[in-house]
Amino acid sequence: MNTFLGEDFMLKNPTAVRLFYSYAENLPIIDYHCHLSPREIYENKRFDNISEIWLGGKQPDGTYSGDHYKWRLMRSNGIDENLITGNVDPYEKFLRFTDTLELSIGNPMYHWSNLELKKYFGINEALTSDNAKAVWDKTSDILQNDPSYTVRGIIEKSNVSFVGTTDDPVDSLEWHDKIAADPDVKFEVRPSFRPDKAININKDGFREYIQQLAGSVGETSLETAVDVVDALEKRLLFFKEKGCKASDHGLDYIPFSRCSEEEADTVFKKAMNGEKLSNEEIDKYQTFILLRLGKIYHRENIVMELHYSVTRNVNEQKFKTVGPDTGYDIIAKSSCGIELARLLSELDKTDELPKTIIFSLDHSDFNLIGSCIGAFQSPEIAGKIQMGAAWWFLDSKDGMEEQMRSCASLSILGNFVGMLTDSRSFLSYARHDYFRRIMCNLIGEWVEYGEYPNNENSLKKIVEGISYYNAKRYFGI
Amino acid sequence: MNTFLGEDFMLKNPTAVRLFYSYAENLPIIDYHCHLSPREIYENKRFDNISEIWLGGKQPDGTYSGDHYKWRLMRSNGIDENLITGNVDPYEKFLRFTDTLELSIGNPMYHWSNLELKKYFGINEALTSDNAKAVWDKTSDILQNDPSYTVRGIIEKSNVSFVGTTDDPVDSLEWHDKIAADPDVKFEVRPSFRPDKAININKDGFREYIQQLAGSVGETSLETAVDVVDALEKRLLFFKEKGCKASDHGLDYIPFSRCSEEEADTVFKKAMNGEKLSNEEIDKYQTFILLRLGKIYHRENIVMELHYSVTRNVNEQKFKTVGPDTGYDIIAKSSCGIELARLLSELDKTDELPKTIIFSLDHSDFNLIGSCIGAFQSPEIAGKIQMGAAWWFLDSKDGMEEQMRSCASLSILGNFVGMLTDSRSFLSYARHDYFRRIMCNLIGEWVEYGEYPNNENSLKKIVEGISYYNAKRYFGI
Amino acid sequence: MNTFLGEDFMLKNPTAVRLFYSYAENLPIIDYHCHLSPREIYENKRFDNISEIWLGGKQPDGTYSGDHYKWRLMRSNGIDENLITGNVDPYEKFLRFTDTLELSIGNPMYHWSNLELKKYFGINEALTSDNAKAVWDKTSDILQNDPSYTVRGIIEKSNVSFVGTTDDPVDSLEWHDKIAADPDVKFEVRPSFRPDKAININKDGFREYIQQLAGSVGETSLETAVDVVDALEKRLLFFKEKGCKASDHGLDYIPFSRCSEEEADTVFKKAMNGEKLSNEEIDKYQTFILLRLGKIYHRENIVMELHYSVTRNVNEQKFKTVGPDTGYDIIAKSSCGIELARLLSELDKTDELPKTIIFSLDHSDFNLIGSCIGAFQSPEIAGKIQMGAAWWFLDSKDGMEEQMRSCASLSILGNFVGMLTDSRSFLSYARHDYFRRIMCNLIGEWVEYGEYPNNENSLKKIVEGISYYNAKRYFGI
Repeated sequence: MNTFLGEDFMLKNPTAVRLFYSYAENLPIIDYHCHLSPREIYENKRFDNISEIWLGGKQPDGTYSGDHYKWRLMRSNGIDENLITGNVDPYEKFLRFTDTLELSIGNPMYHWSNLELKKYFGINEALTSDNAKAVWDKTSDILQNDPSYTVRGIIEKSNVSFVGTTDDPVDSLEWHDKIAADPDVKFEVRPSFRPDKAININKDGFREYIQQLAGSVGETSLETAVDVVDALEKRLLFFKEKGCKASDHGLDYIPFSRCSEEEADTVFKKAMNGEKLSNEEIDKYQTFILLRLGKIYHRENIVMELHYSVTRNVNEQKFKTVGPDTGYDIIAKSSCGIELARLLSELDKTDELPKTIIFSLDHSDFNLIGSCIGAFQSPEIAGKIQMGAAWWFLDSKDGMEEQMRSCASLSILGNFVGMLTDSRSFLSYARHDYFRRIMCNLIGEWVEYGEYPNNENSLKKIVEGISYYNAKRYFGI
Repeated sequence: MNTFLGEDFMLKNPTAVRLFYSYAENLPIIDYHCHLSPREIYENKRFDNISEIWLGGKQPDGTYSGDHYKWRLMRSNGIDENLITGNVDPYEKFLRFTDTLELSIGNPMYHWSNLELKKYFGINEALTSDNAKAVWDKTSDILQNDPSYTVRGIIEKSNVSFVGTTDDPVDSLEWHDKIAADPDVKFEVRPSFRPDKAININKDGFREYIQQLAGSVGETSLETAVDVVDALEKRLLFFKEKGCKASDHGLDYIPFSRCSEEEADTVFKKAMNGEKLSNEEIDKYQTFILLRLGKIYHRENIVMELHYSVTRNVNEQKFKTVGPDTGYDIIAKSSCGIELARLLSELDKTDELPKTIIFSLDHSDFNLIGSCIGAFQSPEIAGKIQMGAAWWFLDSKDGMEEQMRSCASLSILGNFVGMLTDSRSFLSYARHDYFRRIMCNLIGEWVEYGEYPNNENSLKKIVEGISYYNAKRYFGI
Repeated sequence: MNTFLGEDFMLKNPTAVRLFYSYAENLPIIDYHCHLSPREIYENKRFDNISEIWLGGKQPDGTYSGDHYKWRLMRSNGIDENLITGNVDPYEKFLRFTDTLELSIGNPMYHWSNLELKKYFGINEALTSDNAKAVWDKTSDILQNDPSYTVRGIIEKSNVSFVGTTDDPVDSLEWHDKIAADPDVKFEVRPSFRPDKAININKDGFREYIQQLAGSVGETSLETAVDVVDALEKRLLFFKEKGCKASDHGLDYIPFSRCSEEEADTVFKKAMNGEKLSNEEIDKYQTFILLRLGKIYHRENIVMELHYSVTRNVNEQKFKTVGPDTGYDIIAKSSCGIELARLLSELDKTDELPKTIIFSLDHSDFNLIGSCIGAFQSPEIAGKIQMGAAWWFLDSKDGMEEQMRSCASLSILGNFVGMLTDSRSFLSYARHDYFRRIMCNLIGEWVEYGEYPNNENSLKKIVEGISYYNAKRYFGI
């Protein structure tokens, strides 16, 4: 029997163990897409207890901050919202989370949480009601008293060399400037460009956002869709000066509807006048902006990430009371295979397709994406178009294995740029360890079963590539 | 090599064996959703031979009764319909089924049939042409001569504590009354409320059914959609008096189209006038009824089961000759993720979402459902919104494992209410044994691989919960 | 650890090994669907080197010929197109393919290529940059000097008894005639009827093709949709005279829209006048032709193969420069479950449904297909309606296993007609060996785990059936 959280955790065969410890464990982490706060990194925030770092909750300003994966799990266990995100004794929250975790066999949260306790606090036993008090005391003691347990200290401990945050085009990037100017920060922190609000013409707040975007480029207003593109381009160039390597698009689905400048302007003006848009109009505007941005990304050597197949904020009651990004999003049934291909083809036609990583939240898309990326590769760089790592609800052992099997079967796994945390939590770097173990286990299994030869040089190249070097090369870090 | 049907059947690791025999094997069965006949239970029917109990066929009244899973398999082996459902020598039918079974490696029917022979008739060898005669003789002898081999005796032998039948709202529930009045029935038998015919406004027989429904509440007619809801409510209250714990909705897909009372009435009247309805009108009426019923279920603490993603009666020739529920239904491609979320959200908005179990026949829905239920949980009860067990065509080892992995990964497996038979056959309680073995095997595998600690108390709680206690608590039995 | 390419390659348990060597390895191959050239078979072509046979490229006439699976993989590795399909030193191409292969862990191409080197050239070591020169030299030597390494010799070595080529209805079948007249050809080569161009009313070249079709039956023109059917019928009868056993339809999706003769004619005439058709019109015409052909296939005992869920030529730039069938097709999201059932039902209504094999490129269709075939079986032949083997992008170990598990779970695996190459390459018969190993491994695993008894007679029947006898019986060879 393998030990829970033992040295061989997730490594079920001797080759997996060898590969992990020889080639994966000690390589630095390139976390090319996450939601960490550059301000908290700069200010080198400290946490008072594990509940604060794991669960957070409603903030004094009325917003919610914390790990909505954990909130969602606790809600599934029938815990009262007040004991999840409310302003109650943090130890109470922690106990409720502990109870919940015990029943969550097979959930990635079970593994992540316990891995974090082990990796950052030296706790080798799984968290249970029995040891909850001891775990609370030990973690509190370390968080409060060990000088290295600051945000920066945790990131350094995690052997992170690069952090790609997620930033709005209107962001001043002041915290990135401060980080860059501070010689004590031992890792790179770079902004990523996420212009969702300029694309979501159908969502509340679009008009207000366009005003903000105008302000960010010193204009009083943006009058046309091309003005929007021009403003985004200026901001992207500003981001690039600050070291930005990637953009990121969060889309419900991939739109594709050909759209002239005139059409895009008409739709844009309707939206700015507060008129209701048809689905076709929304798709046209979004396609227009995505294509224009795609060409700019290509010219500026910025990676384009596409995240899709989500329906957000489905619980209307909770959306009113707790707002977005609090655990009320679901997987959407995706039906946009052809649109994805057309988007890539339209950019490729004029040799302006940027490096692109495609993430779907619907695992039945993996094979489709695997087949699609193969139709748009290029000598610009090996693996120019990538199937993204298993994302969000798929970010589990089964999801990761399915994504890697699909990627291997339909593309070249050896060129895969690998894992990202996509996380808001500073402890979540343990997920890179988790991913590397699962990756080594899969590869080890193939070798053990005679499906790939036990060729040390090749295996080293593949494992080190997926762990670190492929992302380094791909993002130009 | 594990022995076929041996003690370790489906238990591939020592932890699985320990968990099954310690915590799963001996717990009673709560079969919260099946299609057993309360009349046959009351009358304590006997069977003459295994062919009658397994295969049945065309009845003297021209209807078809029996296990259409087995009919479908025999048809796939090229057997003439007359030798499947016709009025021929039952032993001949049994021989044809035996031949078919031999080729059905990997089919759940292979396991179920042989498990039933073992569990109820002490036959430890797999059924083959070679032993068919001996099996026939032994089972016939027991069925004809052992006084305990009546319907009730078989249910008792199966350690069943609760049977939830499936009943039409217009049903008088007379057989349930008789069972309740009979002190010799050692297990609970309760009706479930299945108002499909009042919802299927687009299907033949709707008008006639509405007349029946009117009659069942002492009215001469129902004039409006609200009248339909009122009549259903009266019948539900009547069902509740008889111990009903759950409703059940069989839907081709989950509809969601907002609909006022006036709109619902207009559509209802069109249907009652025999006018053709648009798809939009059908969706509106169905949404209206489902939402009204959902609120009533919540108020009355009735569980709402939703079964969807089916296309029924696709073989038009056979539908004319042998009618519905005879093995001619198929899995539908589901596209209704958003509609499911909207239905739940609409009920949740006013805190009137009942306990709900969601079953899709499309296994690529598992993750979507897993993500969706997490957005609508509540402190009312842990695991208030559930992903249903692998259903019908998915009710196989692979299907069960996939459903439990998805449930574990996206929700809390420890709160899962577990297995139901959904069966028309009295021997099918062997499927609970099958399910519990597969569940213990999956959990045992996680423990053996170090993915969950070998913590006896936690494992006991989880295994006993899924086997029995979660359903007991959830349905309030 | 199993040896790569060792005797137990893909055979992970002792039962698998026993089954493969006892019942699968030595049976002849019925390759009922491939894209081999009858001309090259007749002319008994020789190859100069492994690059020519594996990669090919741009031909002197400007068309592209070769294995676009390999091209796609090389493009994914960032190789310049000229080094893939261009007119460069074949050894250079081979070296680039070798580099690519090393990173392609988990890709079926890794297994296929190395299996081919082993099976046809006695090379037992995996291909790497280190042994590339030696492999090149050895394969070149054999291809150039061993008199048995002709096209026919390779097919004979592969123990192929039947080759079903893919032919256009207008084809004269002259090469088939020559093969049939040549007593030195030791295996059967038969045409298959693929009338896609007469069905693709929406694609370029339709009008020109209809002219060709008219010419092939001695007419100057075809005036109506019924004329098209009549012409196709004549050609099918001609194909049947030449030994044709099967038709094949490559469809983006399964259409179903009822269509009268008059409607079909109207649409046909619009197309012939160069007018644009609506999607509904295209579906009507296609349904009309498919239904008429289906009835003819039934009457003539011709198997109908349906291949669907593809989007072809998605890279518009490459389509202009390198044309179709060069590696730019992708998996489509299928949404046509009901249409498939309706098509089958419409033919079944009048007892004119032919033997049908259904292939989808979307693996999430497997279960749907598995449920659908069960609704249309018939006593005409066991397994009359079949779920096709894992196809194209799914033709991998994982794809094959998933297809067989789904087939087993929802139908009768013992009646499965098994593997086909679908290939343009003469070395690809190694894929039958690959398939049989994976099939024996799956069955062996079930036996080892006690999910099917270790009953030698039954296992022999199943393994030999899937390897050879089922296809022999099904196609009437």
